[in-house]
Amino acid sequence: MTKAFQPEVLKHFFEDSFKKLDVPIEIYYPVIDGLIQTSLRGVDSHGVRLFPHYIKEVISARINKNPNFTFTKKAASAMILDADNTFGISASVLAMKKAIEIAKDTGVGAVSVINSSHFGAAGIYSLMAAKNDMIGMCCTHTESLVVPYGGKKPFLGTNAITFAFPCEEEEPFCLDMATSTVSLNKIRKYKEEEKEFEDGWVVNKEGESCIDPKEEVYLSHFGGYKGYGLSMIIEILCSILTGMNFGPQIVPMFSDFEKKRHLGHFFLVIDISKFQDINIFKKRLKNLIDSIRKEPVKDGFNKIMVANDPEKEKFKFRSKEGIPISEIDLKNFKEIADLLGLDKKILENYKNVDFDS
Amino acid sequence: MTKAFQPEVLKHFFEDSFKKLDVPIEIYYPVIDGLIQTSLRGVDSHGVRLFPHYIKEVISARINKNPNFTFTKKAASAMILDADNTFGISASVLAMKKAIEIAKDTGVGAVSVINSSHFGAAGIYSLMAAKNDMIGMCCTHTESLVVPYGGKKPFLGTNAITFAFPCEEEEPFCLDMATSTVSLNKIRKYKEEEKEFEDGWVVNKEGESCIDPKEEVYLSHFGGYKGYGLSMIIEILCSILTGMNFGPQIVPMFSDFEKKRHLGHFFLVIDISKFQDINIFKKRLKNLIDSIRKEPVKDGFNKIMVANDPEKEKFKFRSKEGIPISEIDLKNFKEIADLLGLDKKILENYKNVDFDS
Repeated sequence: MTKAFQPEVLKHFFEDSFKKLDVPIEIYYPVIDGLIQTSLRGVDSHGVRLFPHYIKEVISARINKNPNFTFTKKAASAMILDADNTFGISASVLAMKKAIEIAKDTGVGAVSVINSSHFGAAGIYSLMAAKNDMIGMCCTHTESLVVPYGGKKPFLGTNAITFAFPCEEEEPFCLDMATSTVSLNKIRKYKEEEKEFEDGWVVNKEGESCIDPKEEVYLSHFGGYKGYGLSMIIEILCSILTGMNFGPQIVPMFSDFEKKRHLGHFFLVIDISKFQDINIFKKRLKNLIDSIRKEPVKDGFNKIMVANDPEKEKFKFRSKEGIPISEIDLKNFKEIADLLGLDKKILENYKNVDFDS
Repeated sequence: MTKAFQPEVLKHFFEDSFKKLDVPIEIYYPVIDGLIQTSLRGVDSHGVRLFPHYIKEVISARINKNPNFTFTKKAASAMILDADNTFGISASVLAMKKAIEIAKDTGVGAVSVINSSHFGAAGIYSLMAAKNDMIGMCCTHTESLVVPYGGKKPFLGTNAITFAFPCEEEEPFCLDMATSTVSLNKIRKYKEEEKEFEDGWVVNKEGESCIDPKEEVYLSHFGGYKGYGLSMIIEILCSILTGMNFGPQIVPMFSDFEKKRHLGHFFLVIDISKFQDINIFKKRLKNLIDSIRKEPVKDGFNKIMVANDPEKEKFKFRSKEGIPISEIDLKNFKEIADLLGLDKKILENYKNVDFDS
């Protein structure tokens, strides 16, 4: 059984915290909404557990809570957004809105974001486009964590990419993935529990696959040299196209809080109606994913899924039952309340839910 | 030792063949150039060995040798090209030219291609953009060959995607990959030679990884559910956005020659100069790839490579020594000569080269 909080409770607590730090509503609102939606979709690594981290970034002034967003548009379909070192989520919601606006006009909108910070879950933004009957794509680089194919030392980050497409009769199809085989959180959890890793998840200092949770290990790219290649594409779009730092030059997320991170992101939106009747598109996409879901499964699998199917199931369950908060996350929330001099009573509004059933 | 042909010799023979079939130069020229460039880059699966197949497609009238290309432009950055069932390579070169033109104007150009046929090597087109100081991306779907994650029957194709970026002091960075773990050709070769497959390359009828070259096997997606997800993105862009068929509905490449294939492709070009000074971009990309190449390597590897490094090496060698033609491919070329009543003497102009050294 895990403590489950209704979104409104968390929202209330988060809002009080940001207000206490004089963060303006237009900056904190997308952050709160992004974290809660992400947790509702079951992507706990990028959900509300990041809230205390974000608060610390405001306190350390790594995050600029009063950014001066600037927009540079050198061509009809291309825009640069300078995030002025505010929250990556706030800047990215804005960037995606702009990309959608541009795509409505010219068919395709591309927006690069410079001087940003932690992206949050990439799917937040691609889904915005899909909910506007458009194709949404975006990506971000991150700090150096993943060993290149053939290497033994991390260079690129867990560089994430997402695509979303609107679909008839159900929520959008949405792929949202890091280019590492598994997440750093998963590895940390296995280490804590002293559980053996699966072969291929991580490599040791010699670059060899390692299953021993006691060894020092690094992440590897999913799919060998192909995943490594895809990660490089993301790095080029987010570092080289934007003028931001790359790989090992990037300020780490969880240390050096006095330093701004200067991350880059890239957003692309395609207006489907300029290529295809939107209703035909949505109907045929539904047909494609329903067809593949009906394919025969191998032993050990219940059904063929498509990207976003697990998240859709979790969203349904959690929208009713609430968001699971671990004991350690709850402790972190309470510490933030103490730090900011807020009443902790609101954090007693939970029920116990079995999230594994 | 393998027979090596100079590009001019092959070009001459291919040109005579297409002329004999009254294929207009503007249609056959991109095909010949695409196949030869692809072979020079070492991508033999998509190089000159396909020439006899393409000739058969003209003879069967699957390929329309006199297409009426039509362009539909519903917005400044978005175009649809109807290829009228001609060669995928001819249509795709045209589509990429249009996308580059559009990107010069609006910053981003997106072109979908409908009623097309075999794509050839995807890198042909992304490299065109990179050579124009732009970012090139394109993708294609193919016939059903790959088993979805958790399944045991092929559904999607080997759906390929490519990205290319211009770089200082060397040829562009170019990722060009199928979303299957390995190619069908590689599997066929291992079967012929009765060599065991590597674990994870293919699955048997039960969907389990299989290394026995005597079993009936199917391809699997690279990188598990992530590669499967990426393949779905390509399918949606090429099938659903274009209105073309998907997965199992697609006419196979090597059978049903009386049927047109109606494939779809998608092209995207981004004008770098609208986001970043082009010289800074190229200089910093060179710095990024040189930095990663200098990283420490694990046992069994000589160096860290980036996408396109192997192809650049092969291009250098083959530009001097010639293109390797296997005995079976040479036999196929000679059969085409006989079929078309052409002099086979030109196919005696080769030298023997050791391509493995």
